Amino acid sequence: MQNFEFQCDTKIIFGKGAQSRVGELTAQHSKNILLVYGGNSVKRIGLLDEVKASLTQNGVNFTEFGGVVANPRVSLIREGIKIVREKNIDFLLAVGGGSVIDTAKGIGLGALYDGDVWDIYIQKAFPDKMLPVGCVLTIPAAGSESSDSNVVTNEETTEKNAYGHPCMRPRFAIMNPELTFSLPNYQTACGGMDIMAHIMERYFTNEKFVETSDRICEGMLKTMIHNIPIALKENDNYNARAEIMWMGSIAHNGFNGMGRIEEWTNHGMEHQLSAIYDIAHGAGLAIMFPAWMKFVVKKNPDKLIQFAREVFNIDYNYYSPINTALAGIEALENYIKSTGLATRLSDVNIGDENIEKMADMLTNGGKHNVGSYVSLSKEDVMEIYKLAL
Amino acid sequence: MQNFEFQCDTKIIFGKGAQSRVGELTAQHSKNILLVYGGNSVKRIGLLDEVKASLTQNGVNFTEFGGVVANPRVSLIREGIKIVREKNIDFLLAVGGGSVIDTAKGIGLGALYDGDVWDIYIQKAFPDKMLPVGCVLTIPAAGSESSDSNVVTNEETTEKNAYGHPCMRPRFAIMNPELTFSLPNYQTACGGMDIMAHIMERYFTNEKFVETSDRICEGMLKTMIHNIPIALKENDNYNARAEIMWMGSIAHNGFNGMGRIEEWTNHGMEHQLSAIYDIAHGAGLAIMFPAWMKFVVKKNPDKLIQFAREVFNIDYNYYSPINTALAGIEALENYIKSTGLATRLSDVNIGDENIEKMADMLTNGGKHNVGSYVSLSKEDVMEIYKLAL
Repeated sequence: MQNFEFQCDTKIIFGKGAQSRVGELTAQHSKNILLVYGGNSVKRIGLLDEVKASLTQNGVNFTEFGGVVANPRVSLIREGIKIVREKNIDFLLAVGGGSVIDTAKGIGLGALYDGDVWDIYIQKAFPDKMLPVGCVLTIPAAGSESSDSNVVTNEETTEKNAYGHPCMRPRFAIMNPELTFSLPNYQTACGGMDIMAHIMERYFTNEKFVETSDRICEGMLKTMIHNIPIALKENDNYNARAEIMWMGSIAHNGFNGMGRIEEWTNHGMEHQLSAIYDIAHGAGLAIMFPAWMKFVVKKNPDKLIQFAREVFNIDYNYYSPINTALAGIEALENYIKSTGLATRLSDVNIGDENIEKMADMLTNGGKHNVGSYVSLSKEDVMEIYKLAL
Repeated sequence: MQNFEFQCDTKIIFGKGAQSRVGELTAQHSKNILLVYGGNSVKRIGLLDEVKASLTQNGVNFTEFGGVVANPRVSLIREGIKIVREKNIDFLLAVGGGSVIDTAKGIGLGALYDGDVWDIYIQKAFPDKMLPVGCVLTIPAAGSESSDSNVVTNEETTEKNAYGHPCMRPRFAIMNPELTFSLPNYQTACGGMDIMAHIMERYFTNEKFVETSDRICEGMLKTMIHNIPIALKENDNYNARAEIMWMGSIAHNGFNGMGRIEEWTNHGMEHQLSAIYDIAHGAGLAIMFPAWMKFVVKKNPDKLIQFAREVFNIDYNYYSPINTALAGIEALENYIKSTGLATRLSDVNIGDENIEKMADMLTNGGKHNVGSYVSLSKEDVMEIYKLAL
């Protein structure tokens, strides 16, 4: 087990009607806030009105800032920073999913940084302070509601990059599973895949003697595999929605990766995909993970054998252990398909036209390898994209 | 799943040599602290000298306050409060196990409360502030290093009571598994039992659809059952010590009980035992848990069947499901014995002389029942103590 530091101080308010507390919680931090949200869904379910009423009741002035889209844009973050500075706003309330929260985090970082906010995402600046952010979560997926990082897309350069710092954990996260009843099945499936990916990126490690987090990750994955299909069949099943929503946070607040050397190559490969093709992050992960597994299993099957046994209850193949791993990969791919997601690039009309470009972006033109479970060259990354075709 | 709130902001510094950071971390909070510890063990392993040197290097003045014993006494806490007030101390550094940390918490609460500190433990006062506490942990067991509660014994009245409030989470917890290599096997076993009990008190619930925490609790218990015997055989096995130490914190920081209705009757019954007989908390739990299980299995076998299946891999007995549960209880009792702990009161020379007194204390003279998994009257509690004889 590796040495580690861990602190997650986000206050979680979880359950039916939890959003009624948003005004009270926000007022503890500020009376002059930016209210960040996306499009129509928070209006349609009446959430935005409810949040605004609660803020007003608690004497909180808010400036509305809507229009966040999936794969959130740095251009919108720049606009937000301008408004925050003009109005001396000192708190950001995100009402929505990961893109909305990540936008709020970007505004919060950028507002306290003198240069252009994109500097932060190209390793030109490393801020250690952020305007405080609170969340009312509507999509369990990204885990940004209690994570210490965010991901932003630069639509001009088609780059999608992440930044992380302990200062980036939200002050509070309000989570009511009922707010997710109206999610389209596609978003439920994509969110579920994102949550599973956050667990798997931590699970696939060469670090030995990390039994605590192995067992926790395996239990988390089994819970997801059980509950996503229930939520897809019965959209208003509170119990399944609750398991998924709580899991979304604890899958990515970091504690289940402590002591491990984490992976994250699949996120890297997916970020290249969604930066160019603007596909949903979870949809991209659903395609990349099986392809990555098929490539790395030949070089390092051990953890994939464990994954097959402990997550999918595959019988151990004593005569050919690698077949245990292969059966696990097949089980994962079948599970993903059963949730309605594609597992091939061709299924989402993506061809091989940008494979080298994406591999170049990920490996800095082939100058450095990526991945820790198996170290991957530019050529290896290209091979994985090809396996995903 | 129940609605819940959760926040744990303790900063964890985990791994080899972690204690070298104690001065730096403490100095971020105060330069005038009380250094709370127990007896000789922290001196013998050189830890106390190392801590003092690190404090001095970082310009922290400390007043030493040693002599904490297991089942920590309110009388010592009163002494600590006096010193803290006299010297205007505003931070408490606990170097030791749960008793030391619980003493520091008691001093921290009492120093900011006008009346006698024992008021807090008899529900006469409900403070919401505590002088900040930091910890260097030497015994994985109580989980007090990141929990929001403590337990204190009044040696005059032979009462052992708990208090909990969010303000009671330590600011930081330094955890180096190497510091636990020199623990006597008896303490390792008792600590392991305490950690398992913290998981089991949350696990045994009638709440349905708490799959996330079910799976996490089961994984935690399996990890403990695997690693405690390793640490007992190989005292300096870093890997096993690390699993146990990290588990001690996450088993009791509360997250694994979220959404559940928790139990805690075994802790209640044990506190009566150790208040009167001054036995180690873990030793008492090792006796009470199997007895409690044998009593409740007749009234409510379901979660005990799940426990047997998922924790001890007992085959399901389709013809007599309750026998599945009974086999699980037997497996737990055999496991406890294998760690060198007794599972009967008679093994630790305790007879039936105080059974009614203890049941009276727990049920307020029979006026109210205890327990949520199965509601227990005074007579039921007496029956459980008798089953433990």
